[in-house]
Amino acid sequence: MRKILVIGIGAGNPDYLTVQAIAALNKADVFFIPDKGEEKAALRQLRTDILERFVEAQDYRTVVLKTPKRAEAGTDYRGAVDDWHAKLAEAYRHLFETELGEGECGALLVWGDPSLYDSTLRIIERIIATGFSLDYEVIPGITSVQALAARHRIALNRIGEPVLITTGRKLESEPAEDAVVMLDGEQAFSRVVGEYEIFWGAYLGTPEEILVAGRLDEVSGEIERLRREAREQKGWIMDTYLLRKLETGKE
Amino acid sequence: MRKILVIGIGAGNPDYLTVQAIAALNKADVFFIPDKGEEKAALRQLRTDILERFVEAQDYRTVVLKTPKRAEAGTDYRGAVDDWHAKLAEAYRHLFETELGEGECGALLVWGDPSLYDSTLRIIERIIATGFSLDYEVIPGITSVQALAARHRIALNRIGEPVLITTGRKLESEPAEDAVVMLDGEQAFSRVVGEYEIFWGAYLGTPEEILVAGRLDEVSGEIERLRREAREQKGWIMDTYLLRKLETGKE
Ligand SMILES: C[S@@+](CC[C@H](N)C(=O)[O-])C[C@H]1O[C@@H](n2cnc3c(N)ncnc32)[C@H](O)[C@@H]1O
Ligand SMILES: C[S@@+](CC[C@H](N)C(=O)[O-])C[C@H]1O[C@@H](n2cnc3c(N)ncnc32)[C@H](O)[C@@H]1O
Repeated sequence: MRKILVIGIGAGNPDYLTVQAIAALNKADVFFIPDKGEEKAALRQLRTDILERFVEAQDYRTVVLKTPKRAEAGTDYRGAVDDWHAKLAEAYRHLFETELGEGECGALLVWGDPSLYDSTLRIIERIIATGFSLDYEVIPGITSVQALAARHRIALNRIGEPVLITTGRKLESEPAEDAVVMLDGEQAFSRVVGEYEIFWGAYLGTPEEILVAGRLDEVSGEIERLRREAREQKGWIMDTYLLRKLETGKE
Repeated sequence: MRKILVIGIGAGNPDYLTVQAIAALNKADVFFIPDKGEEKAALRQLRTDILERFVEAQDYRTVVLKTPKRAEAGTDYRGAVDDWHAKLAEAYRHLFETELGEGECGALLVWGDPSLYDSTLRIIERIIATGFSLDYEVIPGITSVQALAARHRIALNRIGEPVLITTGRKLESEPAEDAVVMLDGEQAFSRVVGEYEIFWGAYLGTPEEILVAGRLDEVSGEIERLRREAREQKGWIMDTYLLRKLETGKE
């Protein structure tokens, strides 16, 4: 039976790799690397660096997956994603069939942790659902959420309280809980009303990391400026933040 | 200046340690180990094993912190926790003063990741607020939430949807989002109404790991039985689970 290792490589810093992930890297015969996709070219470099640094016998094969084009989301976001996943599943299945021998072990390197806003596991389940026989294992990695908390030296939750992990698109204008926001292309924090603290981080774990923390009304403008400048300079940005309601008066 | 490294050691499997955490372990002159606390004796063993396995020069010192007694929470949960943190901060400050030389580096090993339902960072901030001069750094670790997702090979969120991380105490009887439940002494899942799937895990990452997944109404009884039996046999349990609303009909 063919086997696929889905390996979380952490969100930015190669030192986030776990002992388990390193062992998994060293088990793989073939690495399947998307040519583009959710992450930018600069991030692909990190994958290459990780393989060079952590794999002992440099006799593995690397197979590049030509990522199918993703349709514009329009009104039907779920539908567009679904179509795209179907195409990805087909492309991966084809590669697994042609590039992975019986009894061989392939690996997919996932940014951060495979459990958070990542489609790799869904795509593998689709492939299996088509009748393709495949065993797979998941190796957890440090998420950008944990990188954010570590770099700001904060807990995500207040004592005994919940924390919500959400997207820019889904962020409410007055979040009830401490809310971590990911995948935010539109600076959703600027729409938030009420008294909040923000802990913001871009390019977390990398040498270009930027951190800002403070009262949302006081630092919001600065974050917008830093975001714009960094994006212009590098051509892309990845950022995450925690919004925490200020405990003034009621609450 | 004295320095403290707050090191996330992952939630159960020593192979969850990151390269960064191993480097941090090797930088520390002194390890401060609570004699009891949130985790049970069996878990203390893991800390000792980690030090033996990953620290190269075995010339570090180990200092045991006698954990102050925690008052029964009663009605004022926050107040009781606050009192307890104050006592812990005092005990730690005393140890840092007496056991950590100027310019030395101490380490605190935190189960899972320091950002999730852990009081270490709050206690360090309290110590600093008393005027004690201390530098500190946080090293993220694999949380039990990621261990749960990896072992069940699932994503926490549905495509583009939020996920809530909460406690047994705070779990609503009809959670709106995918909800991860921690710190649940009372099997809060048995109070949930509506159609949900559950992905449950106990002793995740350890050789005693137990996993159950299925429709909540179908597996709830089995989980209660397994939980009871495991707890009787070992004297303690730690478990976490994800509840996911079934996408039937509306929604
Ligand atoms: C497709 S999701 C993948 C998340 C990833 N699986 C994880 O565990 O962090 C991409 C989003 O993660 C966040 N992100 C990932 N890496 C980041 C980093 N190094 N710094 C800041 N945000 C990051 C951003 O919000 C970005 O929009
Ligand atoms: C005080 S919190 C600490 C959480 C920890 N900081 C983390 O990152 O996972 C303890 C709770 O974490 C969960 N937990 C921790 N380790 C676990 C494990 N190995 N298996 C299942 N649940 C675990 C349980 O819900 C437990 O009640």
